[in-house]
Amino acid sequence: MASSLKPPEVPLELHAINREKLLNSFRQHLTETSCPLHGFGGEEKNRYCTDHIELFRQESYFAYLFGVREPGFYGAIDIATGKSILFAPRLPSEYAVWLGEIKPLSYFQERYKVSTVYYTDEIVGVLYDQYKGSGKPLLFLLHGINTDSNIFSKPAEFEGIEKCKTELNMLHPVLSECRVLKSDLELAVIQFANDISSEAHVEVMRNTRVGMKEYQLESMFLHHTYMYGGCRHCSYTCICATGENSAVLHYGHAAAPNDRTFEEGDMALLDMGAEYHFYGSDITCSFPVNGKFTSDQKFIYNAVLEAHNAVINAMKPGVSWVDMHKLAEKIILESLKKGSAIVGNVEDMMVERLGAAFMPHGLGHFLGIDTHDPGGYSKGTERPKEPGLKSLRTSRELCEGMVITVEPGCYFIDALLVPAMENAKTSKFFNREVIGRFKDFGGVRIESDVLVTSNGSKNMTNVPRETWEIEAVMAGAPWPLNQKI
Amino acid sequence: MASSLKPPEVPLELHAINREKLLNSFRQHLTETSCPLHGFGGEEKNRYCTDHIELFRQESYFAYLFGVREPGFYGAIDIATGKSILFAPRLPSEYAVWLGEIKPLSYFQERYKVSTVYYTDEIVGVLYDQYKGSGKPLLFLLHGINTDSNIFSKPAEFEGIEKCKTELNMLHPVLSECRVLKSDLELAVIQFANDISSEAHVEVMRNTRVGMKEYQLESMFLHHTYMYGGCRHCSYTCICATGENSAVLHYGHAAAPNDRTFEEGDMALLDMGAEYHFYGSDITCSFPVNGKFTSDQKFIYNAVLEAHNAVINAMKPGVSWVDMHKLAEKIILESLKKGSAIVGNVEDMMVERLGAAFMPHGLGHFLGIDTHDPGGYSKGTERPKEPGLKSLRTSRELCEGMVITVEPGCYFIDALLVPAMENAKTSKFFNREVIGRFKDFGGVRIESDVLVTSNGSKNMTNVPRETWEIEAVMAGAPWPLNQKI
Ligand SMILES: [Mn+2]
Ligand SMILES: [Mn+2]
Repeated sequence: MASSLKPPEVPLELHAINREKLLNSFRQHLTETSCPLHGFGGEEKNRYCTDHIELFRQESYFAYLFGVREPGFYGAIDIATGKSILFAPRLPSEYAVWLGEIKPLSYFQERYKVSTVYYTDEIVGVLYDQYKGSGKPLLFLLHGINTDSNIFSKPAEFEGIEKCKTELNMLHPVLSECRVLKSDLELAVIQFANDISSEAHVEVMRNTRVGMKEYQLESMFLHHTYMYGGCRHCSYTCICATGENSAVLHYGHAAAPNDRTFEEGDMALLDMGAEYHFYGSDITCSFPVNGKFTSDQKFIYNAVLEAHNAVINAMKPGVSWVDMHKLAEKIILESLKKGSAIVGNVEDMMVERLGAAFMPHGLGHFLGIDTHDPGGYSKGTERPKEPGLKSLRTSRELCEGMVITVEPGCYFIDALLVPAMENAKTSKFFNREVIGRFKDFGGVRIESDVLVTSNGSKNMTNVPRETWEIEAVMAGAPWPLNQKI
Repeated sequence: MASSLKPPEVPLELHAINREKLLNSFRQHLTETSCPLHGFGGEEKNRYCTDHIELFRQESYFAYLFGVREPGFYGAIDIATGKSILFAPRLPSEYAVWLGEIKPLSYFQERYKVSTVYYTDEIVGVLYDQYKGSGKPLLFLLHGINTDSNIFSKPAEFEGIEKCKTELNMLHPVLSECRVLKSDLELAVIQFANDISSEAHVEVMRNTRVGMKEYQLESMFLHHTYMYGGCRHCSYTCICATGENSAVLHYGHAAAPNDRTFEEGDMALLDMGAEYHFYGSDITCSFPVNGKFTSDQKFIYNAVLEAHNAVINAMKPGVSWVDMHKLAEKIILESLKKGSAIVGNVEDMMVERLGAAFMPHGLGHFLGIDTHDPGGYSKGTERPKEPGLKSLRTSRELCEGMVITVEPGCYFIDALLVPAMENAKTSKFFNREVIGRFKDFGGVRIESDVLVTSNGSKNMTNVPRETWEIEAVMAGAPWPLNQKI
């Protein structure tokens, strides 16, 4: 099988609907009425001083509103009239020789379903023409902190901006909040990203052999999602961790570049997701590289799987994400206790936040145009301070239309376990002998992308999860298992 | 066949030799003796305001001297003693949980074969300790223009730099010149990048089918070079142009993203090269997507191939690259004349620079850690001003040890041909009927990476070039053709 999927045509009304949502939301917050908003797309970047141009990927807020794949654009939405305006860069005639056809403005108008398109050097003039009031037109610019990176988005800059009044505080929270609840058109794209990524995970699993290098699994994933899904970008750098590396949560970057040769007896933890038309997926599968779980591997794997399933079953509107995190922790601790890795009262362990010694990261995060989609800490939502919980990328209550990852994990990380075993309050919980058996185990993470529905949740990811399903698929069975070949 | 190759272990003495070369060269230019030089590596970058970290690729000058794959390093070489010093970032303890083992300084010392390693927060102290003279230590910082991008490299910055004297003009030209002539160890890496990329080109060619999307060819190339060659980076964004797109010289970027479905009768122009341990390759193959050249396709293809071969045969130390460019142009014009696409005296055409209407780009460029490696216009070398020639990335005489691409092309670009056919001085050369036949043809480029040897040249690229070789390989023959299966 090559693939059962093919890349869908995405209706660019998707972004018109996003704009409409912003308009409606913005109008509710406004006292003044006639004022355009303004967003700015990204630019291509050179690598250092060279003429090596990095492959451009649109800034996410701009992509949300306009869906523009080309660099150098600006965009505005007139709140009074609802008109949307794109500003395209005026390209030099040599562009046609080196970079391709210089498209007329009408091309962008039609493709991106906006009211009008001008050149970027016309911005101020157009804004004044649009603006019917007296004095300077007021622009709401995007400026606000990303609560995962702590970096502020850079407000748009252009020649003549000083001729306008600018407001920096309103757009970012309103627009971020719009991005939290996904529309049906957005969900369809996220579903495709999940479908092709799920299929690629299965393909990788099936082709994993002892003696391979971690990056070969990355290569197979990238190839499958691009070749058959048209996904040129990934949502994030692939994490292909085997053996001990699977305890490094964000393995795979340049200083730890998926370059280990894996061995008989290793577990693999593969966290990989493709992006399609800006929208991402974020999926983790964990499995033994030789295709057969040992009893220890099954023990840890099933602890995590039980947590994963329990959370998905408990999810529905109104449920607190902090509670879901604690639910996952509790189930993992109970399983570890059953397997005698830890001893004592699980409620006491919860009070001491013992779960964070095994799962230092948050249970999951919003997913959309960014892998860690914004809006996790909207105004009035506070970040917890306790170990484990402080790593949560949101502490909100679930609402219908949120897409959030469910990614419990259980890791054996010396940097966490050694201090916890020495700590007066937590040392009593550990069975050192059993813990010692897992010294080089690494870790297990199971991650699915889950939509909150009106009365529950829907798992958008479709990969083998039960140990016997994984073993069957790795032995060559089709996926789904009951499928005819 | 999966691959006949496997990624070689690169001896990191390669970079020690590079440093030695710089030292020797620098000492010749110096009057003062005791002063360290200073280079700065790159940093990881976030995508806009998000916590999405782009995959880090080391800055090229820094990679040349130190071969460091991790971000956030500084490096220095003491000219007086020849000692090399790396400065590693001091990582917070959470790094061990999220990003991996915090390696001791001795790890970097051993891996990168430097004299000593300190932390980046120790730079000024160490420089003062090293420096035996009176007053402030003098640092030569990297600052100079890249003649392809016209961007200046950014000199190193660090806390306390004001306690040192700095010099900005000397290091860049000397270091750029070091990069022009490749050492044997460098050549071995470039050869591997060529080997795996050549093999991947053959693989792509063999799997090309009418009805595919351009990006599927890109995906196959990326997969082959990563899966079997361990090449995580490409030298540049893949150009997978079919039909008319093959006349767009730098097709494949975000605004023209290799997304055309190709058709019976199209030519493909695939310009793709993998990078291995910082060193790149840059290879273009052109072929009919259905595996059989038409007579028109053969006509243009052979015109370019003849130019490609003639240049490689003429290359040797002392030969001017401008002359090589003119040689390629002349051969292409003669062929076009033979095929009646143009008429008249070829010498007259050369005077009018008619070649630039068919090949607007330069014949080739230095290749190394950057695809467009620096040093093309060293001090005293001037950029030609005539059409075509002004696009040359170097006008130098060839020297033994240079690696330069030979990439003649012939394109049918309306934006160039229409004005040339209207121009009083060049209109007479065109046979409009024949030229008209090629309106939607696109273009052909043939590109190999060639080493200048002591008495000639060596083609490091190994792909089918003759039309019958291409047809045989596309029909399933092994490559090289005489190889037993
Ligand atoms: Mn995730
Ligand atoms: Mn080239």
